[in-house]
Amino acid sequence: MKKHNFFAGPSILPDYTVEETVKAIQDFDGTGISLMCMSHRDKSFDAVMNKTVELFKQVLDIPAGYSVIFLGGGASLQFAMVPMNLLRTKAFYVNTGTWAQKAAKEAKLFGEVDDTTVSSKADNYTYIPKGFKIPTDCDYMHITSNNTIFGTEILNDYDSPIPVVCDASSDIFSRPIDVSKYGIIYGGAQKNFSCAGVTFAIVKDDLLGKVDRAIPTMLNYQTHIDKNSMFNTPPVVPIFAGMKTLEWILQNGGVKEMEKRAIRKSTKLYEEIDRNKLFRGTVREDSRSRMSVCFVMNDEYKDLEAKFLDFVKGRDMVGLKGHRSVGGFRASLYNALPEESVDALVQAMKDFEKEN
Amino acid sequence: MKKHNFFAGPSILPDYTVEETVKAIQDFDGTGISLMCMSHRDKSFDAVMNKTVELFKQVLDIPAGYSVIFLGGGASLQFAMVPMNLLRTKAFYVNTGTWAQKAAKEAKLFGEVDDTTVSSKADNYTYIPKGFKIPTDCDYMHITSNNTIFGTEILNDYDSPIPVVCDASSDIFSRPIDVSKYGIIYGGAQKNFSCAGVTFAIVKDDLLGKVDRAIPTMLNYQTHIDKNSMFNTPPVVPIFAGMKTLEWILQNGGVKEMEKRAIRKSTKLYEEIDRNKLFRGTVREDSRSRMSVCFVMNDEYKDLEAKFLDFVKGRDMVGLKGHRSVGGFRASLYNALPEESVDALVQAMKDFEKEN
Repeated sequence: MKKHNFFAGPSILPDYTVEETVKAIQDFDGTGISLMCMSHRDKSFDAVMNKTVELFKQVLDIPAGYSVIFLGGGASLQFAMVPMNLLRTKAFYVNTGTWAQKAAKEAKLFGEVDDTTVSSKADNYTYIPKGFKIPTDCDYMHITSNNTIFGTEILNDYDSPIPVVCDASSDIFSRPIDVSKYGIIYGGAQKNFSCAGVTFAIVKDDLLGKVDRAIPTMLNYQTHIDKNSMFNTPPVVPIFAGMKTLEWILQNGGVKEMEKRAIRKSTKLYEEIDRNKLFRGTVREDSRSRMSVCFVMNDEYKDLEAKFLDFVKGRDMVGLKGHRSVGGFRASLYNALPEESVDALVQAMKDFEKEN
Repeated sequence: MKKHNFFAGPSILPDYTVEETVKAIQDFDGTGISLMCMSHRDKSFDAVMNKTVELFKQVLDIPAGYSVIFLGGGASLQFAMVPMNLLRTKAFYVNTGTWAQKAAKEAKLFGEVDDTTVSSKADNYTYIPKGFKIPTDCDYMHITSNNTIFGTEILNDYDSPIPVVCDASSDIFSRPIDVSKYGIIYGGAQKNFSCAGVTFAIVKDDLLGKVDRAIPTMLNYQTHIDKNSMFNTPPVVPIFAGMKTLEWILQNGGVKEMEKRAIRKSTKLYEEIDRNKLFRGTVREDSRSRMSVCFVMNDEYKDLEAKFLDFVKGRDMVGLKGHRSVGGFRASLYNALPEESVDALVQAMKDFEKEN
């Protein structure tokens, strides 16, 4: 029996990814060896690594001059690696929530950081600041494209006079992006890419090598670029699963089609939130995320919150409890979530409204 | 069809680990959700994390005052994290090979390092230095308990006046160790613990918090101790698989039995290497590794090397080619390698000798 999986991450992956990973763990590529027990130095895994990089570049239409690498430690380790590799004097952080704040905190260990000029903190991160001027005296601008906790999303690529570094952990592959407008795009795998245990980074090669500090080997992007992510043992299973997700994206029409689906799914759900007298959205309409739909009970129905969570649980839905800093509900609508799961949630909201 | 898997890592895991991981990826713990798609914040995974830590402590009989944590980035990232967290003025590195050297290199970014006083480098790392005096003016001593490339192993726990930090990536769980004699024991998972993608660290709690430098949050052991390895999303699948390997170790008599098997398997193979006129071992007898058995063709038979590799390939053996810095052959005899695989290799060596 399958559940409607609304988890924020690790979260739903395509059945294709899961089934192909199972097959490879049982017998990898006809070798008679499990993917879990296969040396990363074997040519069969070399082919996986090369193919994953190739598909990653194809899916996002990554131009020449960029490298795609796979690392450990999650996006949280990138919060430190980015400034370690790029920050000379000052960096500009757009503060749109918890993750942006955490990223800025690490950067402060390496130089001056402006994370207050452009911030929606005073309004509990209910919107994405717009129309701001990007400072030219900073080494880079850091953004968090999707805010899983508060439910806002940056849906444009900035024309920036300084390199843009983007934490795209939770909305990568959900729309076409113009990679040429970015310096680094990084993210944890466990939403739209793979199971937890691998981190991707798309790095503009000519940004590197400009800081004076000594960088530990494993924390230097150049190490992993030079060794095609095989300086040390890479996370074999998560990389393989990511390759399968990339295949699935291409089989399903690429990121253009992923964007159409994301618009369709999120629009359906926001329309019901706006229509239903029990619920309301938590963020400004122009900043609504397509991936992380946050909503709460209207004040007069606050006491129905636990009851609604029970109600959807009874309809085989998991992961709908909101993050503790916002409360209420959160539906994560990642690429692999079928539209039927959104339909089921919308129907549950309607039925719950009738009953209450 | 199954192969005799002699890979150096990622390498053979118990069938139990592989089969249980497959089951969990198909349906985790009866939840109707794949382990690959399960939130690490769900109580079902919380139970996995707690159980893995508990079994880890049970298997190694870890005393109070130590924490067990799981990280990303591999042992290679630990090469930097150890000095970042512990090195105040000077550290002592026992130089027994490539991995020890790599560890010392990273430490030099953080302070003074003595990695030349005790070293077998001049003899191409063919032995483990013994009888040396551990300096008292260093913050810690670093050792690499098993040397996968050259085939030597430290089989004792040092009585040391300073904390001992041990990279046990490739021989953890292969013998009982007296954890109370160590400050930190760390390692990549992909030999005796799990599939690639997680790193373990056993940390003596009172060693931390003594350095002045600012440590990035993710690189501070204390972060992960305080959050039970859930500060950020942990590598869910590799941790689950590791838990299953720990269960398998206990079901099979624990590390005492693992040691007996390791002695039996490695003794059989070394006896054949010593007996067979075609082959010879590459390291001093008193330093021979039980996990990584390195051997070469005797000089007069050097031209038979490729032929022997073909010969064993024909008998369904993989991973026997030696590391490029030593040449010849390497048989990795990790815990999960059945004795029958060693028997098959010994038989192949005998048959090849007859034919040539």
